[in-house]
Formats: sequence, structure tokens, C-alpha cells
Amino acid sequence: MSEPQPAMPDSLAQMKLFMEPRSIAVVGATRQSGPDSFNIVERLGSHGYRGRVYPVNPRADSIAGIKAYPDVASVPEKVDLAVIPVWERSAVPALIEQCIHAGIRAIVVVTQGFADGDAEGRQLQDRISRMAQDAGVRLLGPNSLGVANPYLGLNTSFVPHRMEKIPLGVICQSGLFFSHLRSMPILGKGIDLGNGCDVHFAEALEYYENDPQTRVILLHVEGTNEGRRFAEVAGRVSRKKPIVALKSARSKEGVAAAQSHTGSLSSKDEVVRAALRQCGIAQAENIEELEDLAKAFLRLPLMKGRRVAIVSMSGGAGVMLVDACGEQGLKVAEPSPETRDKLRPLLPPWMHGMHPLDLWPITAHSGLSLSETALIGLRAFMADPNVDGVVLAFGTVFIEEALRIADALPALMETYRKPVSWWTATGADGEREAAIEKRGLAVFHGGERAVRALRKLADYWEFLQAC
Amino acid sequence: MSEPQPAMPDSLAQMKLFMEPRSIAVVGATRQSGPDSFNIVERLGSHGYRGRVYPVNPRADSIAGIKAYPDVASVPEKVDLAVIPVWERSAVPALIEQCIHAGIRAIVVVTQGFADGDAEGRQLQDRISRMAQDAGVRLLGPNSLGVANPYLGLNTSFVPHRMEKIPLGVICQSGLFFSHLRSMPILGKGIDLGNGCDVHFAEALEYYENDPQTRVILLHVEGTNEGRRFAEVAGRVSRKKPIVALKSARSKEGVAAAQSHTGSLSSKDEVVRAALRQCGIAQAENIEELEDLAKAFLRLPLMKGRRVAIVSMSGGAGVMLVDACGEQGLKVAEPSPETRDKLRPLLPPWMHGMHPLDLWPITAHSGLSLSETALIGLRAFMADPNVDGVVLAFGTVFIEEALRIADALPALMETYRKPVSWWTATGADGEREAAIEKRGLAVFHGGERAVRALRKLADYWEFLQAC
Repeated sequence: MSEPQPAMPDSLAQMKLFMEPRSIAVVGATRQSGPDSFNIVERLGSHGYRGRVYPVNPRADSIAGIKAYPDVASVPEKVDLAVIPVWERSAVPALIEQCIHAGIRAIVVVTQGFADGDAEGRQLQDRISRMAQDAGVRLLGPNSLGVANPYLGLNTSFVPHRMEKIPLGVICQSGLFFSHLRSMPILGKGIDLGNGCDVHFAEALEYYENDPQTRVILLHVEGTNEGRRFAEVAGRVSRKKPIVALKSARSKEGVAAAQSHTGSLSSKDEVVRAALRQCGIAQAENIEELEDLAKAFLRLPLMKGRRVAIVSMSGGAGVMLVDACGEQGLKVAEPSPETRDKLRPLLPPWMHGMHPLDLWPITAHSGLSLSETALIGLRAFMADPNVDGVVLAFGTVFIEEALRIADALPALMETYRKPVSWWTATGADGEREAAIEKRGLAVFHGGERAVRALRKLADYWEFLQAC
Repeated sequence: MSEPQPAMPDSLAQMKLFMEPRSIAVVGATRQSGPDSFNIVERLGSHGYRGRVYPVNPRADSIAGIKAYPDVASVPEKVDLAVIPVWERSAVPALIEQCIHAGIRAIVVVTQGFADGDAEGRQLQDRISRMAQDAGVRLLGPNSLGVANPYLGLNTSFVPHRMEKIPLGVICQSGLFFSHLRSMPILGKGIDLGNGCDVHFAEALEYYENDPQTRVILLHVEGTNEGRRFAEVAGRVSRKKPIVALKSARSKEGVAAAQSHTGSLSSKDEVVRAALRQCGIAQAENIEELEDLAKAFLRLPLMKGRRVAIVSMSGGAGVMLVDACGEQGLKVAEPSPETRDKLRPLLPPWMHGMHPLDLWPITAHSGLSLSETALIGLRAFMADPNVDGVVLAFGTVFIEEALRIADALPALMETYRKPVSWWTATGADGEREAAIEKRGLAVFHGGERAVRALRKLADYWEFLQAC
């Protein structure tokens, strides 16, 4: 493998135009407004974008209450970013031409029907891609929802999104990650590559690599024909910041569907997955796991080994967690003699196994509260040199007890630099769970999911050690 | 295999004493009250039990405002059910003796430290089990939370639970399924076998087999040493009502943990799983899937084939669903010429693939609303003889559009007897999802999960055909 290349300064500067623009022209903005109009000018306002917005439409005086301009040349400043959302693909080249003439160096093309459509669309895509290259302009898309940056209230998507200021950078080949098919109410920064005719994974990764507001990077990969470049950059970035990836278009049928989705000419699934693995990238099998892992890397310390201690409010849940550890290549920890000495006084005399630590019998026997027994167990395991991380199964029904545990955990994780992953589950209890997570903890909807998160924290730590 | 045996009338009658008791004695009820007292008398009240409750405790005049009796013999009626919740295992045999003398024929033992504990506990368990057998009394437990029946406001668990009147019968070997480690706010009826020293899977299955309030049965299996009897009864019941099972204690370590949890002497995991498969029981890999499948069997028609149509508000989600179909052994349907004719007018001219049906481009091109395009697609696919079921990926961000779709789906499912599984995902949007589910629909948190549900509906249909 050749020596990793540093980011091209000019490429980085242009990526900043996409991600941190001070001004945006929406070129071909719709005059319609309201919920079904998908009006990007209106959305930029509702998302709270703090820069200047210039609608461009020859048939409008103003759009969403903002003065409109007949063409890009009339816009009174050289904007950082142009967004082209017209529905008619044939209109796109002329609009790009206008942007290039106006000196704009970063353009999002939302329009569909390029390589994601027919042969004509593919030709059209080649044409706009050459136009951009010749002019030294960067082009994001086509078939892209654009970019999101909650720190600026920026979201170029035509559908509304919740955003939170979290240090998570998303790179996706689908607007899916801007959509509400996600469970996580958070996105952080986002880049939708769409068909990826110019800006691709490498440029987006380099932006996050150099972005102090990003600590964890999240990828959605349908395919890439820049395999070597991708591996080079991803391998380098992965040593600095954890990367989590979801590879879709796995089956032959999935690849065919991806071709009409983003026109991706995918490398073989196994090849891409092997490359991701070699780069130390944590792979998720579905969106829920992607979000779990994002949460784990954002909130938990890495796991510096594979030995897991289990604390559970249910014996049955403890059994499932033991199964899950085995399935994930983790080991159920052997508590040290010191830990055994700390726990023994809590146990009923008939109880031999103290691991998994089953909270009910020891709570009943000791007369302590659930949170007291849980915390005695958690403190003992966190201090135990035979333990690398802990999984806690504790529901939200006794919310005050749960919050007492939640209050103590951040300091424990800080002191011992070991992760605690928390299996809870909510039906209508979203608020209770949010109260736990507000403490900076990571809650997972299921035991397997909590254990899998620990495993990926251990994998990444091993990758860093081997670097 | 021998001819299936009909349920023993007497065994069934005794199971009804557990599940539909008109009166309960809590033998050894605690005098403490409040949230940390785990007082079953108090809980029976707060769960709304409509029968008569008699606390038994020689050191109390009343418990939770209800007159207490010094011993079972003093209770003024022969109650249907006794619940023994004392913490001290050595006290249990004498209390069982009292119950037997009083003519009680159904007893729940909550107490722990029997086969789930040490050798002495195992002997004690053998002893109480023999006592019950000799007297013709049925014993549920020990180490059991007992029973739940929302139709009577009955829940003998010492922790609070939400219950809903749904036709779902749970049989578990852990209080876990009474606990809030579940996502689903519903339980239906429940039987916790605990250590299963007398009442076991067969009796519990027979109760649900004959219970008109139960349509779907949900099993949590750690292990059983009644393998042949289990297979006989489960195979028979499974032909009448769908059974969904989660087998835990899979690994060697998991089996060891299960032994200190419920003292189960498990058959080999593969043996149990093969038996479940042969009985036509849908197997779940974790609690979340168990709940998904319960929901699917409760709310969706069976899938009479393996050809799936996909309608998605995101192209990227469509690709993932295609992958998931392949992974689950389902086929992406080939729409019929009639369906193609119905959909073609909606498509932009550059769009070739109409399946997966990607809602955004066709909504933009047709000028229709999202729900209109989705419903045209859904109607066409449901009527299509090449389609056996549909998966819909549609988030809750456009909730009014989602509800318009939700309003139309029940009639479509009724007309064509094909399932529609709905992939949505909620962060803080639990209420929106509940609004969709209130229409009798099944919503899944993830595409794989929605597809897996369809697959199990197809598997069960095939099983019934082969019977």
C-alpha cells in the first residue's frame, strides 16, 4: 500500500464550502410553499440556517418571504454554495453553467434521473461531472439531499429533520439517513453522496478527519468504484477517529436495486467488507446496529479486552447475555477473589453463582435496594482487573432506582476507563430512557445489542493496538 | 410418534384455577408496604384483581388494608389459588402442607433457592414436588412470578406490570417476560414456569390450546427434561394456534447460567431447536424478534408464498429490503403486466425499475401526494397474483400521510388476505407509531425485522399446508 496522502488543501477548503457555507443560492427554487412543496428555501429557514439564502427563479419576485433573483448572475454576492433542486434533469447543465460563471465552487445537485435512471441520464451525469472538473468546481450528487450541519442550523434536505449538535459525522449514499426511518433522533453533520459523480467517500472522510466538531464517523456504503482511494483514506482516518459502516447492496438483487437507486457500480460485497475490516471500520448489519455503534463510540470508553461482567435484574436476561457474549466472541469474566469477597455478604446462603450477578435474590436477601445492590456489583466489577467491560440489564419500571444507578455510572466509567452498556427496553417509556441517556450513558434495546456494542469497542481497541 | 393425547380434563381444570381464580390466598404475605416491599397483596390490588384476596400472616391483623388470617385453615373459604412468596425456603414445605390440608389445588411458589440454588435446595424441591403429586395438587414454580390474566386484572408478580387484554398467551421460564426489559407494552396472559418442578410446558400449552381468549402463544425456553411430552403437545397445539419461541441457554456457558437460574437440565440446544422447528414453531433469536413475531401473528394474515413487494419512501431503504429478502429466503416479486400498467403513468420517463417502488421520484413526477402514490402502489401489489405480501418503508415524519396509508391498509389486508409489514422507526415518536398501530397494523423498528416477520408468516403457512 502506498504512503497515505495528506488531504489536498484545496479539496478540504472546498468541502468546507459545502459543510460550513456562509451563503447559499437555491438555483431553481420552487415557488410553492407548505408541507407538500418540498421547498428547500423554506426548509433552510425552518431548520434555522444562520447564513444568507438567495432563491433563484426567473418567475418569482420572492420565495418564502425572501427576495428572489432571476438568475445566479444577479445574486448580489458570490455565494459559498449552490443547491440545484429542479425536478427536470435536462435543466441541470445550464444551471451548473450559471453557477460556474458566477464563480461558485461548491454545488449540490438534488435532481434525480442521472446514473440512477437510464442511459441518457448516465450520459448527462458524465457531462455535468466533466463540466465541474474542467472548472475546478466540486459537485455533490446528483440525486443527493445535500448536507447537514447542526452547528449552523444547515440542512439542505427538502424534508424536515431533527438535528442535534453531536460530534457525529454521517456519510451516506441515500437520503435514508436524513429520513425518519432511523430510530436515533440525532444526526450530527451529514453528507449525502447521492450518485457520487464527483465528491465521494474520500473527500467526505477528509472533511471529518480534519473537523474538530466530529469525533465519530458513520458510513452508509452501497458501492464505490474508487476502492483503492477509499481504502487509503479510510485506513488513515480510522486510526484517528472510529468509523462505523453499514454496507448495503449485499445480494445480487440488492446490487441491481442499488444501480437504479444511485447508479453505483458496486465492487463485490465481500471485497468491500474485507476492505472495511482491514481499515479497522466497525461494521453494522443494519441501521439499528449502526445507530447502536454510533452511540457506543460516542459515549463509552473503548473496551481494552474481551472479558465481560454481567449485572442483571433478571436471571433469564443474565442467561441471554451469557449466550450473546459467546456469540460475539467475548468471554464471561471470572471475578477476582477481591470481587467475590465484596459480593459474598449480599448473597443468600444457597446461592453459589455470583456471576451473572442476579439482582433479585441478593436484593431480597440483603435488604438493600435494587440500586444499592446493583451499584455494589458495578463498583466491584469495574475495579476488578479481570473485567474489561460490564453489561447491565435493568429496566425502567423502577425509574428512581435506575436513575440512582445512572447518576453513579459516568464517574465509574471515567475512573476505570471501562464501558458499561445498558440493556433496557421501552414501550411508551421513551422519556425514562432519555433521562438515563441524558447522563451521557448508552442504552440499548436488547441484550444482544448491548453486548454487540461492547464487542465492537473491543475490536476497535485491538485494531488501534495493532496499528 | 404416538397419537396425540387430549388434555386431561382434570389437569385443564387445575390450570384454570391458576389462570382464572375467583379467590387467592397469599400465604406468608409481607407486612411491609410501599414501592420497595414487593408486597403481592398490594400488587394484586394495584393490578386491579377482581377476585377475593386473603393475606395469611400470623403476625398481622391486616395487610394492605385487607383482613389477614393467622394460617390457611382460618381463611373463610376454600380458595382457588395459593401464592407462597416467603423469602425463606425452609418455610415453604409447611406452608404447602397447610394449603393441601385446606383443600387448595393450585399453588404458586415464588420463593427462590431450590434447584436454582444448591444441593439442599434441589432436595427441597424434590420434596415439595412429591408432596404436591401425592396430594393431587398442582404446583407452579418454585422461583416463579406466577401468573397474569389481564381479563381478570390478575398478576401475582411482586413488581408492577402493564397488562393489556390481547389474545396472546406467554409461557416463560423467567420473570423476564413480566419485566420491563421488553419493548412491547403488552403481555396478554402469562405463566412463569420458574423451576418447573410440576406444572411445565405441556400443561401451560394445553391451557392456551383450550383458551378462547388466546390466539397466539409465546414461549421462552431455557430447557426442559420433558422433551417428548413437550414435542407431542406443542406439535398438536401448533396446528391450531401459532406458537413463537425464544430458546435461550444456547452456549455451554449459557446452559451453566441457566442451571443456577432455574435449575433446568437442558437438552442440547440443537435438539431443542430441531424439535421446535419440527413442531412448526416460529423461532426468534432474541426478545425483540419474539415481540416482532407475536405482533405479526396477532395482526397480520399469513403469507401464502414467498414473493414480497417493496414500497419505500427511500431508495436506500429499498436496497436494504431487497438484501433482507434474500437473506430471509424470500423472493423479490416480479410485478404482473397489470401492475406495471397501473404504475407506469406515475413514473418519470427516465425511470425503468418500478420495483422496489421508490416513492420520492414518482411523487415528484406525478404531482400526487406521498400517501396517494404509496396507496396506488400498495393497491396494485396487493391485487397482484405474483405478490404474496408487501413490506412498506415509510417513516412517521409525515404523520398525516402515514395515517392516510394506515387508514386504508386494514381493508386491503382483509380483501386480499396478504400481510403488509411496516418498517418505521421512532425516536421520540412513540405516539405517532401508536397511532398507526391502533389501526391494527404491525410496525417494525427496522427493515430486516419487517422482512423477517413476513418470512415467519410464510414458514407457518407452509407448515400448516404440510400438516
